[in-house]
Amino acid sequence: MENFIYHNPTQLIFGRGQLAQLEEKARQLGPTVLLVYGGGSIGRTGLYDKVISLLQSAGCRVHELAGVEPNPRLSTVNKGIELCRKEGVHWILAVGGGSVIDAAKAVAIGVPYEGDVWDFYTRKAIAQEALPLGTVLTLAATGSEMNRGSVVTNWETQEKHGAGTTFPTFSILDPEHTFSVPRDQTIYGISDILSHVFEQYFTHTTEIPLQTRFAESIMKSVIENAERVLTDPEDYDARANILYCGTMALNGTLPVGVTTDWATHSIEHAVSAVYDIPHGGGLAIIFPKWMRYVYHENVARFVRFATEVWNVDPSGKTDNEIALEGIAATEAFFAQIGAPTRLADYAITDEHLQLMAEKATPFGPIGQFKTLTSDDVAQILRLSL
Amino acid sequence: MENFIYHNPTQLIFGRGQLAQLEEKARQLGPTVLLVYGGGSIGRTGLYDKVISLLQSAGCRVHELAGVEPNPRLSTVNKGIELCRKEGVHWILAVGGGSVIDAAKAVAIGVPYEGDVWDFYTRKAIAQEALPLGTVLTLAATGSEMNRGSVVTNWETQEKHGAGTTFPTFSILDPEHTFSVPRDQTIYGISDILSHVFEQYFTHTTEIPLQTRFAESIMKSVIENAERVLTDPEDYDARANILYCGTMALNGTLPVGVTTDWATHSIEHAVSAVYDIPHGGGLAIIFPKWMRYVYHENVARFVRFATEVWNVDPSGKTDNEIALEGIAATEAFFAQIGAPTRLADYAITDEHLQLMAEKATPFGPIGQFKTLTSDDVAQILRLSL
Repeated sequence: MENFIYHNPTQLIFGRGQLAQLEEKARQLGPTVLLVYGGGSIGRTGLYDKVISLLQSAGCRVHELAGVEPNPRLSTVNKGIELCRKEGVHWILAVGGGSVIDAAKAVAIGVPYEGDVWDFYTRKAIAQEALPLGTVLTLAATGSEMNRGSVVTNWETQEKHGAGTTFPTFSILDPEHTFSVPRDQTIYGISDILSHVFEQYFTHTTEIPLQTRFAESIMKSVIENAERVLTDPEDYDARANILYCGTMALNGTLPVGVTTDWATHSIEHAVSAVYDIPHGGGLAIIFPKWMRYVYHENVARFVRFATEVWNVDPSGKTDNEIALEGIAATEAFFAQIGAPTRLADYAITDEHLQLMAEKATPFGPIGQFKTLTSDDVAQILRLSL
Repeated sequence: MENFIYHNPTQLIFGRGQLAQLEEKARQLGPTVLLVYGGGSIGRTGLYDKVISLLQSAGCRVHELAGVEPNPRLSTVNKGIELCRKEGVHWILAVGGGSVIDAAKAVAIGVPYEGDVWDFYTRKAIAQEALPLGTVLTLAATGSEMNRGSVVTNWETQEKHGAGTTFPTFSILDPEHTFSVPRDQTIYGISDILSHVFEQYFTHTTEIPLQTRFAESIMKSVIENAERVLTDPEDYDARANILYCGTMALNGTLPVGVTTDWATHSIEHAVSAVYDIPHGGGLAIIFPKWMRYVYHENVARFVRFATEVWNVDPSGKTDNEIALEGIAATEAFFAQIGAPTRLADYAITDEHLQLMAEKATPFGPIGQFKTLTSDDVAQILRLSL
C-alpha cells in the first residue's frame, strides 16, 4: 500500500423522498441560486417543478442555466459564469447526471477566478475557491456527485479534459429519480461505473487486499443488478444498488494507497471530443480492447479479475487462458446488456484515428498499468474499429 | 436498502512519515493545544518527543492531559475540560488509541457545553459544538479516528456509555506507529475490528449487496493479515492493512442503508464497566456466544457468513449446520490468535451476572437482529462464563 490522504466532505442524502431535504439546504446556502440542468427530461418527469417549488419555499431567487450538453461545453460553462456574476448568485444547484454536475462544478470554480476557466482543464491553474454546489442526481453513472472531478469539452479546439474542481456540499440521490432513465442511458451508466472501477483495479500496487476486494464488491454488485434494471426500470432496489455503486466507484474510496490508470478514459475522451459519442458507450467499446493490449503486464491481476468477478473456472488452464477468459466475459457482458462493442457502431472509421491518438496524449504518454504512447493508443483504437 | 445520510468530513492522512503533516495542521488550528495521551508508551517509542517537537515548530503552547485510562473515565475527561477552559485551548490533539481519542472527543464537546458532559452519554443532550480535534493513532482497533463516536466510563456509577460527539478534523495513521503495540493489544484490536463489522453485518435488511460485500471484504482482509502481524509485529504491509481495515470498519461506510445491531457492544460495555477488562478481549469472548444465541433469527445470513468469510464447504450440510460451522470457525479464529474465549479467563464468575445484564440494558431492550432483554443478556453472559 502507498501513502495516501483521503478527504471527502460531501454529504450524501440517499433514498426515497429525500428531495424534501433540499428546502433546508437552500435556506442554509443563500437566497440566490443558479439551477443547472440539461435537456427536457427533468421537465417531463416533474422533477423540475418539484425542485423549483422547494427552492421557492426556501425563499430562493432562481436563475437558470438550461440545456447543458451530454459532453458539457466550455461555451455553456462560460454562459453560467457570466450569469452568476451578473446576478450575484450565492450557490449552484445541479439537477441531472454527470454532464450537468460537471458543468456546474466548472461554473462554481469559474465565478471567483479572474482568468479563463479553461485554465483549470489545461493544467494552467488549480482551483482554490468555488461557489457552494448541491446536486440532485438523476442518473447512475458519473460519481461526480461525490468527488472533485469535472470533465468539460472545448468544442473550438476539439479538446475534452478533466480537472479537480470542488466537492458538492450535498448530493441528493433518490433511486426513483432514475426510474425514467432510458434504456440506452442506463446501459451507458453501467458501463461508466464498471469502467471507473477498472481504472482503479488494474494496478501494479501490491498489498492492497481491502481496496482490491472493495473494487470487486462494486463490480459484482453492478453486474448482478444490471439485468434487473434493464428488465424492470422501476425496480427500486436494483436502481438503488446501481446508484450507490456508482457513487462508491468514484468517490475516492477505491484509489487510496493505489496507483491507478485512467488511460482508457483519456482515449474515450479523445474519441468523444472528435465524434461526440456517449461516454459510457465509448468506454464499453474501448475497455476490453485496452485489456487485451495490456493484460500481459500483470497477468496475475487479470487472473484474479477473471476468477473473482466473472467466476472463471481456473482448473486445467494457463494463467494467460484464464486472463483472456475474464476479458472475454467482460466483452460478453457488455454485448449482453446491449452496449456498443465496436466504434463502427457509431460509424467511426479509421479516418481520424491518428488525430484521436494524438488528442488522447496531449501531455505525453498516459496510463500506469502500461504506459501508452500515441502509437499504443492508435493500436488500441484500431482494435476497437 | 433503507434511506440514509452519509457524511464524514475527517481527513485521513495515512502512511509512513505522515506525522510530518502535523506541523502544518497545528499552524492552521491555533497556538494553544491540549495534548491528550495515555500511559507511557508514546514516551518509550519516541512518538511523544516527535509530536512535541512538531507542535513547537508550529509555535504552539502545549498543555497536557496524560494518563487516560484504557476505559477512559469521566473524571479524567472533566480534568481535561477544566484545563482547556483555564488555558484558553484552541484545539485538541489526541495521540494514542481509541480510549485516548474517545476521551479527547468528550473534552472537545465538554468545553463549550455549560452542563455536565456526562449528559451527552446519558442521552440528555446532543453535541452541537466542539473544539477542533486532531488525532495521531497508535493502535488499530477503534475506528474512533474517523467517526463521531466516543465511549466513556463513569466509575462512580459503574456506567459505560457511548455518544455521538464530534468528527476529528484530521487523523494521522502511520502503520509504523503500531509496530510497538504489544501482542495482547494487537489481538484485542483485531477482535475489536471484527466485532465492529459483525455488529453491522448481522442484519435483516435486504438488498444491500454492496454493504454486505464491503463488510466481508474487511473481515477477510483482517483475518488474512492477523497471523502476519502476530508473527512479525514490524511487517509494515500487514500492519497497514489491519490499520486501514480498522478505520473502514467503523467510519460509517458499512451501515449506510442498513439496520445495525450493537447489542454485543452494550453487553461488553456492561462487563467492562463492572470488571474493567479490555474491550477487545470482552468482545472476543461474548460475540460467538451472541451468535449462537441469535443465529436462528436469520439463518441465511449466517450461512453466507460461514461460506463467504470462513470458506465453509456447504455441500451435504443443512443450513443450520453451515451456520454453526461458521460460528465455530469464528471461535476457533479467536482462540488461534490467542484471544480470551471465556469470562473465566478474566476470573469473572456469575457473581455479578444479573447486575451486568441490567447495566447492558439501561434504556430498555437492546439489539436489532434479535431484541434482547436483560434476561436474554443474562443467558448470553452465562454462555460466556
